[in-house]
Amino acid sequence: ELGGFSEDCVKINPDYIRSFLFESKLMPSTWIVIRIDGCHFHRFSDVHEFNKPNDKQALDLMNLCAVAVLEEFQDIIFSYGVSDEYSFVLKKNSQLYQRRASEIVSAIVSFFSSMYVMKWKDVFPMKELKYPPSFDGRAVCYPSAEILRDYLAWRQVDCHINNQYNTCFWSLVKSGKCKSEAQSCLKGTQAREKNELLLKEFGIDYNTLPLMFRQGSSVFRVKTEKTSILENSTSVGKAQTKIVTEYCNIIEQSFWEANPSILD
Amino acid sequence: ELGGFSEDCVKINPDYIRSFLFESKLMPSTWIVIRIDGCHFHRFSDVHEFNKPNDKQALDLMNLCAVAVLEEFQDIIFSYGVSDEYSFVLKKNSQLYQRRASEIVSAIVSFFSSMYVMKWKDVFPMKELKYPPSFDGRAVCYPSAEILRDYLAWRQVDCHINNQYNTCFWSLVKSGKCKSEAQSCLKGTQAREKNELLLKEFGIDYNTLPLMFRQGSSVFRVKTEKTSILENSTSVGKAQTKIVTEYCNIIEQSFWEANPSILD
Amino acid sequence: ELGGFSEDCVKINPDYIRSFLFESKLMPSTWIVIRIDGCHFHRFSDVHEFNKPNDKQALDLMNLCAVAVLEEFQDIIFSYGVSDEYSFVLKKNSQLYQRRASEIVSAIVSFFSSMYVMKWKDVFPMKELKYPPSFDGRAVCYPSAEILRDYLAWRQVDCHINNQYNTCFWSLVKSGKCKSEAQSCLKGTQAREKNELLLKEFGIDYNTLPLMFRQGSSVFRVKTEKTSILENSTSVGKAQTKIVTEYCNIIEQSFWEANPSILD
Amino acid sequence: ELGGFSEDCVKINPDYIRSFLFESKLMPSTWIVIRIDGCHFHRFSDVHEFNKPNDKQALDLMNLCAVAVLEEFQDIIFSYGVSDEYSFVLKKNSQLYQRRASEIVSAIVSFFSSMYVMKWKDVFPMKELKYPPSFDGRAVCYPSAEILRDYLAWRQVDCHINNQYNTCFWSLVKSGKCKSEAQSCLKGTQAREKNELLLKEFGIDYNTLPLMFRQGSSVFRVKTEKTSILENSTSVGKAQTKIVTEYCNIIEQSFWEANPSILD
Repeated sequence: ELGGFSEDCVKINPDYIRSFLFESKLMPSTWIVIRIDGCHFHRFSDVHEFNKPNDKQALDLMNLCAVAVLEEFQDIIFSYGVSDEYSFVLKKNSQLYQRRASEIVSAIVSFFSSMYVMKWKDVFPMKELKYPPSFDGRAVCYPSAEILRDYLAWRQVDCHINNQYNTCFWSLVKSGKCKSEAQSCLKGTQAREKNELLLKEFGIDYNTLPLMFRQGSSVFRVKTEKTSILENSTSVGKAQTKIVTEYCNIIEQSFWEANPSILD
Repeated sequence: ELGGFSEDCVKINPDYIRSFLFESKLMPSTWIVIRIDGCHFHRFSDVHEFNKPNDKQALDLMNLCAVAVLEEFQDIIFSYGVSDEYSFVLKKNSQLYQRRASEIVSAIVSFFSSMYVMKWKDVFPMKELKYPPSFDGRAVCYPSAEILRDYLAWRQVDCHINNQYNTCFWSLVKSGKCKSEAQSCLKGTQAREKNELLLKEFGIDYNTLPLMFRQGSSVFRVKTEKTSILENSTSVGKAQTKIVTEYCNIIEQSFWEANPSILD
Repeated sequence: ELGGFSEDCVKINPDYIRSFLFESKLMPSTWIVIRIDGCHFHRFSDVHEFNKPNDKQALDLMNLCAVAVLEEFQDIIFSYGVSDEYSFVLKKNSQLYQRRASEIVSAIVSFFSSMYVMKWKDVFPMKELKYPPSFDGRAVCYPSAEILRDYLAWRQVDCHINNQYNTCFWSLVKSGKCKSEAQSCLKGTQAREKNELLLKEFGIDYNTLPLMFRQGSSVFRVKTEKTSILENSTSVGKAQTKIVTEYCNIIEQSFWEANPSILD
Repeated sequence: ELGGFSEDCVKINPDYIRSFLFESKLMPSTWIVIRIDGCHFHRFSDVHEFNKPNDKQALDLMNLCAVAVLEEFQDIIFSYGVSDEYSFVLKKNSQLYQRRASEIVSAIVSFFSSMYVMKWKDVFPMKELKYPPSFDGRAVCYPSAEILRDYLAWRQVDCHINNQYNTCFWSLVKSGKCKSEAQSCLKGTQAREKNELLLKEFGIDYNTLPLMFRQGSSVFRVKTEKTSILENSTSVGKAQTKIVTEYCNIIEQSFWEANPSILD
């Protein structure tokens, strides 16, 4: 007899039920990228009156959450964020959740979401969070450091292209054009033409805009050495890592040469 | 020229990068269950001083979030929660995210997590949320309504078995036994013996404990009819659905017969 | 020391190597269909001078192989073949190779191919097999008997549509039209028009063509009862199954009602 | 009206039926290995009276089929066979069947099986093929050349260990021991002890046994240069590849250095 339950429930065969579970393990020895994207963030940014084309506080909040994710998940070695998207790179031999895709993606996206709500008031002290934000996520594997770097470069190129377009678009809209007129103006324009438009029409030198807007945010670990003075006056260096947020060019070779420990 | 970027970035081939994406689509015409579980909730419940073996407020918070999930995701027809776990059942022909497992799991787990943090203060007005809770999730498909019901019955049997054990365990601990003594007392005992222990030692009639603790929580849609009186005094019935939270026996046939619209 | 090998090979970690293996298990309690298709059979049928639009011997050979497959793999309950394609249906709860897709597909396709070569001379005593035929294969699961029957019906409709087209096409070609003219003649024609063309131009009543060409081949098990007379003159019935090849309509309900044991 | 079919078949929705198909694409830019294994070859080798522990003709037949596979599938750059197993390595960027696992595995295993039957009489002119051989297959991906080489080394170490054991085992059996006695003799023995047993008891110097038995067979492409003398008496070199079968040590670095084009 099972409490209030009838004998029927004894018939359940847990092994049979469990046999429907399937495991999607990510290939060993590859770089796992977990990429999360805001769900319906167009509406979310309207409802919460984010500045256009970039809201520094909203980006700061994304970055704060990314830093927290790196603190929570030791296997994440690098992350790159732009707009409402963030990519987290796990080390090649990570055994997090035995590399089960579903658990890794959900645990990271869940932690990020909770943190976003908890930190909201710190970043927007005067703004109420009207409804819960949500993010979807997915895992992708890259078999070599070169292809992983191509992935990150692709995201940064996307950041640049979108930011340049959006900067033009919102300048035109703020100057009085309606949205469809602004779209027409920009249709088919090249990068150089957009920069000229910004400079001539609005006095904006694109290359002086904040790096965070133009290059996105990279959150990663750097190795530091903490020097301690022992009782006998000798000093001892102890390897440590700290998490930093930078707005750097991750397309160029020089970044990775300057930070060899990230992908080693 | 791409803003501050060198010509190098032009070499990136987005189609090649995207080719590493893989889609894991869930089999059409099957019942999708998204099951989420609290990550490290043993520690979370200690840090936030949840009552043992059941904290009514913590369970209420889980249920509030489940109701919100059903409001947000129209394709979810039923959900069942116990402790820090919740199972969400999507209708058989759902096309949510084109049945891509990763997106469905992450969007639901993310929304649930955000809501958990947002509603915390409503449920625990005197308790601070010390750190962000997180949940992991996974998708499983069941090919028939019978097997789906077996899955749900399995969860409810688990609820019962765990609750009975935990009720005994914490009664013993509160009575002065240390945890390992309590474990020894319960080792190998049958359901009937546990009920006798509760009754004789602690005066607890197991079957009078709150249904929510013994049977878990079911959150689902019921069809209602809203009758409106028109201007010409005729009344018109309009089909509506509302979301209800019940602590019912979902193992027995009678529940599903009384609610035929859930799995039809 | 490992025979002629140096010490290096001791460094190999078999568990690490094996970790790259992934298992793709097919969902339990669903109908598995293994469908095989001839690779480049257009060329194969040209080189081996198969009759057009249908070569009875080549189809007989496919059917002989299918019968052998059913004899070898007890879990296959039904199969349907048309042209150079064959679909094998495994019973819903088959545990063949623990439902690993790769092994099931490859073992069936391999056995079929070997048998095709072995039986060639029986069917084509005067024709040399010029090069090895090969087939590719794939596994698909269907969650209900209804959808499985829809799959089979789809294949049989395809058989009919292709056969009707090909019968017209080759009649036109044999009458002296070149292939592109024949195609033009048939472009956009309905089923009725094709039948009229066959009747008026070539005196062919489509519905009198061999059933095997019009409906494809079904190879399946039927239950029979073998009556034995014992020594004491009493007779005993013993259930047996035999494998039959029929050219029947599997779209209509009546076939399945007449053979209830196939999908029970 | 569809020929002899009723109107019912018009209801079939091919897109719905096709939606159950799932594609399992292998990760781009990784080394695909297709490994095939004889099904029930213990019995097959008994029925066909293969010599124990190694049947040179049976191995020659396997190698002939492997050569034919490399001729048929241009993307295969290397293969390694031992006993009734063969591993085929596709080049890293192969687009064969758009990297769909099921098609690649089944097409290779099917071609190999057909060829095995076709070539049987060439290798065993006096022996009848009693029943069709079959092989199962699977695909595995390796993200780097190093891990691929580890995989191949693992197979060759396995070849050595098995061959040494089997050589001892069958020597004992042929000397009059029953199979269980032979097993007992060998239980727990090291490589050196096995070699001593062979030398002292049977006068066999293990290291003089045929390389094919001790090291397995490698079938791969080598680049050659064909020199042609043109009309004007100048000679022109034209790069060509030919397929070779060798019994070489593929664990050591030297093989890969001598054949850099295989994994480049």
